Amino acid sequence: MIEVYMKKAIDIANRGSGFVNPDPLVGAILVKNEKIVGQGWYKFFGSERAEVMAIKSAGEDTRDSELFINIEPEIDEKYDEYISFILNSGIKRIYIGIPNPRVGRGGKAEEVFKPLGIEIEYGVLKNECEELNEIYTHYINTGTPFVFTKWAMTLDGKLASRTGDSKWISSEKSLEFVHHLRQRVAAIMVGENTVRLDNPLLTTRLEGVVISNPLRVIVSKYGDIPLNSNILKVDANTRTLIIASEKIAIEKEVELKNYGVDIIKLRERQGKIQFEDIVKALGERNIDSLYIEGGSSLLASAFESRVVNKVYAAIAPKIIGGKDAITPVGGVGIEKMNDAIRLSRVTHQIIGDDVIFKGYI
Amino acid sequence: MIEVYMKKAIDIANRGSGFVNPDPLVGAILVKNEKIVGQGWYKFFGSERAEVMAIKSAGEDTRDSELFINIEPEIDEKYDEYISFILNSGIKRIYIGIPNPRVGRGGKAEEVFKPLGIEIEYGVLKNECEELNEIYTHYINTGTPFVFTKWAMTLDGKLASRTGDSKWISSEKSLEFVHHLRQRVAAIMVGENTVRLDNPLLTTRLEGVVISNPLRVIVSKYGDIPLNSNILKVDANTRTLIIASEKIAIEKEVELKNYGVDIIKLRERQGKIQFEDIVKALGERNIDSLYIEGGSSLLASAFESRVVNKVYAAIAPKIIGGKDAITPVGGVGIEKMNDAIRLSRVTHQIIGDDVIFKGYI
Ligand SMILES: NC(=O)c1ccc[n+]([C@@H]2O[C@H](COP(=O)([O-])OP(=O)(O)OC[C@H]3O[C@@H](n4cnc5c(N)ncnc54)[C@H](OP(=O)(O)O)[C@@H]3O)[C@@H](O)[C@H]2O)c1
Ligand SMILES: NC(=O)c1ccc[n+]([C@@H]2O[C@H](COP(=O)([O-])OP(=O)(O)OC[C@H]3O[C@@H](n4cnc5c(N)ncnc54)[C@H](OP(=O)(O)O)[C@@H]3O)[C@@H](O)[C@H]2O)c1
Repeated sequence: MIEVYMKKAIDIANRGSGFVNPDPLVGAILVKNEKIVGQGWYKFFGSERAEVMAIKSAGEDTRDSELFINIEPEIDEKYDEYISFILNSGIKRIYIGIPNPRVGRGGKAEEVFKPLGIEIEYGVLKNECEELNEIYTHYINTGTPFVFTKWAMTLDGKLASRTGDSKWISSEKSLEFVHHLRQRVAAIMVGENTVRLDNPLLTTRLEGVVISNPLRVIVSKYGDIPLNSNILKVDANTRTLIIASEKIAIEKEVELKNYGVDIIKLRERQGKIQFEDIVKALGERNIDSLYIEGGSSLLASAFESRVVNKVYAAIAPKIIGGKDAITPVGGVGIEKMNDAIRLSRVTHQIIGDDVIFKGYI
Repeated sequence: MIEVYMKKAIDIANRGSGFVNPDPLVGAILVKNEKIVGQGWYKFFGSERAEVMAIKSAGEDTRDSELFINIEPEIDEKYDEYISFILNSGIKRIYIGIPNPRVGRGGKAEEVFKPLGIEIEYGVLKNECEELNEIYTHYINTGTPFVFTKWAMTLDGKLASRTGDSKWISSEKSLEFVHHLRQRVAAIMVGENTVRLDNPLLTTRLEGVVISNPLRVIVSKYGDIPLNSNILKVDANTRTLIIASEKIAIEKEVELKNYGVDIIKLRERQGKIQFEDIVKALGERNIDSLYIEGGSSLLASAFESRVVNKVYAAIAPKIIGGKDAITPVGGVGIEKMNDAIRLSRVTHQIIGDDVIFKGYI
């Protein structure tokens, strides 16, 4: 049953998806006499703690209950009031998914609560809890965003037809998957050519949930973006950031800024903006997660810089042909098959006729 | 139980894989009092019938037994002796997977046996029985081989690295799959460039079974094949056929024939030998099945001519990159994603980290 309760904590934690970054997703389940008596989740950045919400939702009778929480609560000197609240609740045991990696302020649940008579157990559904907060953990440890890629590819390896048409490779169900990923991340990125050819919105479209749009990031050395592009339609909830070369013309910069977009200028090396510099700049702006959607040239650049952490790839059983059609990862490429990048911890999700691969680098 | 017995008939039929072409694979299970009392399969082209073998293997006591056979036996005027044999066995009912599509001589089991008091039931595990003999059915109906393709591709859509290296994309387990396909088919085909770059053997390597090597077919317009190629090492069990242009130089033709290879010369149209002509020529030589293994240019040509019936594609979670690396299907390609060739009856087999797609065109 311990795993079942923790699974529920994970599920409920996910309700905060897209709203808590760069904090972790947190879900809490309170159990008494083998019944769930309270639940809570971290709703948005700066909101009430999941476990506090869970205890409050249970009402009076929380004595001798057990708390399931996917990540260890952060506790520091200032948290006397919080500690009293937990103590007063009469909780006898706390099951924790993973320790909190936050250095300094971080994870002292064991240190604090054990001497006060509350039992603490770590490691329940460890792998699932790690994956749930892989963004948070990575960002805490590196200061740069956790980088996902996701592409949809035909069974014969194409990201688009020879004319650049990619609508639509995968099924509607697989597309929904994309929107869940967009909901989760702080930023989404495409290359200039994708803007030109697809004119994407890059917003999150999901039924039945409050939407959180990621920051739209476009890599465009000289700002050569059609002025009627969707990504230039900016408002408070759909913002755009252009990553440009420091050599971008000042007139171009001013013109684009007039549309309300932000611009970060980074230096060019061998004609490219280095992804190491990009993720550093984004990390400094509190962007904990970046989802690179394509195209081929941009993804190649990201893989070459080794900034990619996790790969999703949807494969649809369609054949389009074309020796000049682009593939998911272009660039120069690796010479020997033996030196190819191998994904680890690979899983497959079958969605109708499509398969979505997931793996880590 | 009926399905279980038919499944056994299918399994045992498969033992003839690679040896019966262009006849069908046939397996027969004899059941009496809910016990299997006899079994037989069609062993090689011209061997004893599966059902005869099954009845003989049961010994004396076959009265009131039931026969399960994946495909309807062929019966024509000459088969008096066979009909008496079945009658004498005392079989009371015959369960048949699929009717025999052979026109003229074909499938008269119902017509013949029903009046003689044997019950006949068609359609047990119909889909499985159809797939088992899709080669046979296609060849009977069209006179041209059933065409499979199979490729192994990286998760970023490459058939080989930019330098042409494709060893190995998929795992050993997935490679084994290739050898089962080679065992099954009458002919295997690659393009001239694959011979040059990979120097493949194109033989079947499987542990624990008697091997049947397919005829190796190479498409090479002017016979421009390195003379130390493995496919030029020919013996009675590893034969090679070159499909060349009628414009091939006579000296080249003589030189290659000296290695023991066969040559079919076909006319060129727009610089290509048309696959319609290739499958016709192979069909005339009793080749009921053709497995095209690659590369990119040859597969494109086969898809353009619409001769492909069934597609296998193995995808391995590796990333190699390279805008100049080849993809499974090259050629000119289709313009619009909406016009892409969609596979039907798609299934997925997960083999370790790889996924093998299977589908029909
Ligand atoms: N199926 C899918 O999932 C999917 C997703 C997205 C896009 N697509 C398709 O992909 C196609 C576009 O791909 P693409 O490869 O042509 O274009 P792209 O990657 O979207 O954009 C390429 C542009 O970005 C620049 N660029 C890339 N990396 C850079 C870096 N590190 N620094 C500076 N500039 C950089 C390139 O400059 P250089 O020329 O100097 O390299 C080029 O100008 C479209 O057809 C679209 O439909 C498909
Ligand atoms: N991963 C896998 O499963 C797999 C399997 C097989 C091969 N491969 C890889 O594929 C690569 C080779 O592919 P490729 O595309 O370069 O070569 P290919 O398809 O093996 O052979 C191409 C040659 O065949 C000719 N050809 C194709 N169709 C023809 C037709 N209908 N009539 C006459 N000639 C025809 C081409 O002529 P034109 O030049 O006139 O078109 C060209 O000379 C190698 O790197 C190999 O490792 C990978």
